Amino acid sequence: MRKVTTSMRTGPVLLQIHPLDERAMEQARARQARLTKPPGSLGRLEELSIQLAGITGNPRPRCKSPAVLVLVADHGVARQGVSAFPQEVTMHMLKNFLQGGAAINALARSVGARVLVADFGVAGFPVHNKELHNWKVAAGTHDFSERPAMSAAEAMLAFDRGVQFANRELQRGGDLLAFGEMGIGNTTSAAAIACALLGRPAADLAGRGTGVDDERLARKIAVIDAALALHRPNPDDAYDVLAKVGGLEIGGMMGAMLAAGAARVPILVDGFIATAAALLACRVAPELRGRLIAAHRSAEGGHGLMLEALGLRPLLDLGLRLGEGTGAALAIPLVQAAARVLDEVVTFEEAGIFLRPSA
Amino acid sequence: MRKVTTSMRTGPVLLQIHPLDERAMEQARARQARLTKPPGSLGRLEELSIQLAGITGNPRPRCKSPAVLVLVADHGVARQGVSAFPQEVTMHMLKNFLQGGAAINALARSVGARVLVADFGVAGFPVHNKELHNWKVAAGTHDFSERPAMSAAEAMLAFDRGVQFANRELQRGGDLLAFGEMGIGNTTSAAAIACALLGRPAADLAGRGTGVDDERLARKIAVIDAALALHRPNPDDAYDVLAKVGGLEIGGMMGAMLAAGAARVPILVDGFIATAAALLACRVAPELRGRLIAAHRSAEGGHGLMLEALGLRPLLDLGLRLGEGTGAALAIPLVQAAARVLDEVVTFEEAGIFLRPSA
Repeated sequence: MRKVTTSMRTGPVLLQIHPLDERAMEQARARQARLTKPPGSLGRLEELSIQLAGITGNPRPRCKSPAVLVLVADHGVARQGVSAFPQEVTMHMLKNFLQGGAAINALARSVGARVLVADFGVAGFPVHNKELHNWKVAAGTHDFSERPAMSAAEAMLAFDRGVQFANRELQRGGDLLAFGEMGIGNTTSAAAIACALLGRPAADLAGRGTGVDDERLARKIAVIDAALALHRPNPDDAYDVLAKVGGLEIGGMMGAMLAAGAARVPILVDGFIATAAALLACRVAPELRGRLIAAHRSAEGGHGLMLEALGLRPLLDLGLRLGEGTGAALAIPLVQAAARVLDEVVTFEEAGIFLRPSA
Repeated sequence: MRKVTTSMRTGPVLLQIHPLDERAMEQARARQARLTKPPGSLGRLEELSIQLAGITGNPRPRCKSPAVLVLVADHGVARQGVSAFPQEVTMHMLKNFLQGGAAINALARSVGARVLVADFGVAGFPVHNKELHNWKVAAGTHDFSERPAMSAAEAMLAFDRGVQFANRELQRGGDLLAFGEMGIGNTTSAAAIACALLGRPAADLAGRGTGVDDERLARKIAVIDAALALHRPNPDDAYDVLAKVGGLEIGGMMGAMLAAGAARVPILVDGFIATAAALLACRVAPELRGRLIAAHRSAEGGHGLMLEALGLRPLLDLGLRLGEGTGAALAIPLVQAAARVLDEVVTFEEAGIFLRPSA
């Protein structure tokens, strides 16, 4: 068991990430083998149900109350022209989320999940809205092509507030947490984090994000490589990587994922940026890995390397590259279905079916 | 527009399969391009929403009332030892479906879809249950290793009853029909149909079905190749293929899919057996192809060839090989999500966001 401790003015946070519950997994595996279907015939769904048993410690888990946590923040590096959209779009989209008009809102409604929108560091005038979860650490990060994205204290604060954001939802009964984000420039930050942690050049991980052209992509790659050479983040220190090239919403997701892990609640990881946060979280607590469910393979090319590094096989591959938690939302029904098959399908004995060997 | 006519004692059935509605697709495509997200960032979901517009003729379609139609029948060829399970399992599973204890029941409940269970030709004593849709044509097919699986009249009757089964559900308001099946021995029949239609040897299409060993797989392949040599079904005559090596539930699905197609209702095709029915349906009405949505890629190896022949790219790839409509049920939330994104996400103009070019 790995203990993760942070100590901020909000008080010490102690997160214990337990190993998966082997006994619950064994019971789930045994039940799967007796259900009224050929053993193994539900493929990944069966594996997923066993993982859910291990995560929750319940041999017949259910995920009845899913939530999508959307963390929003701005990135100073956006001023380097690494995105197809101007920075103000972050604020526009924050408001759009709160009004229910964005893709994640439509998808969450479609799959029956709550959407919780949190400001972890949006630039511009503060938004006053009772639906908004205000965990703002700063009005965006600094431009990491010039100086570290944030101070060590800000990195810890973003992490800590992520823990609290998730804990509130966990206390409210959320039993499946999906993580998404929004922030113009954040594929640049996510790629830089992955480069630092995996020891790869930017060309391996940076992609077209919102849809940049060749020129902007080349600039994005150059910006990341230069920033890593400038700041030399320590790959063994996730907080250092976060502070130097990360984002406030990414730090928040890192904390929130660890909080869900500590609470034995399954974690649905969205795409490129959420997976960078998962990489950070697993650097401080490698046992978290078994508690992650990769929702989808993003169209952002470097995502595959990140998933590989975490040993995760995504459930969906639909060419998505939006973020916001959209891929994670789409995977919620699959996770719920896996749990329901294990819990609700009867065994051959329960159905009173006693088979003789086939001719 | 292709008209499909059958004439049975139930009266003539005239099915008109319209081409996709280009105008609705154009409107959907134009709306997708203006939604508050980078164009194309929802990948397959965007394509699917445009297809749904084309199928329904509605530029903002919704799929609010999905149903899974599970057609059940027995196969005489099961006595050749081509399955890992004895024939009586078909009847056991029919009863399991009616009691709500099978995988398709759990999955349909999970995704909020109705399950309609129909007997198209189960062997043994008739089941009396008010939930059962009784479209039984015969007490199973003949063993096609010895004689044609059914008469030409039975093939037409299975087709016709499939049309009626679907039409009842369409009249009840079903606006997304998913098709599944159950019948011990039916991967053998489905593989034989695909071999006949695609001009391939059995080794290319036959798989392990419920999980047969090498010996049974070799027997299955030999049985199919011998039956095709014996009956020489005419690949240009889908009804002839159905009669000689088909199954009553497969004929029913073929009719039911065409009925849904004629009603401009999207068709979710499950796995190996449902796709064989889709191949038959598209042989009589090639325009149906654009109205099909392949739910998933089955673990049954030959499925890929069938999907390729239909030009379909499946939404899911989860290693499923159960049938019953389980893969199709899992894809229902994806189809609904695609429709809701198109309908509910606001455009940049609607959100009052007017972008200046990025720096």
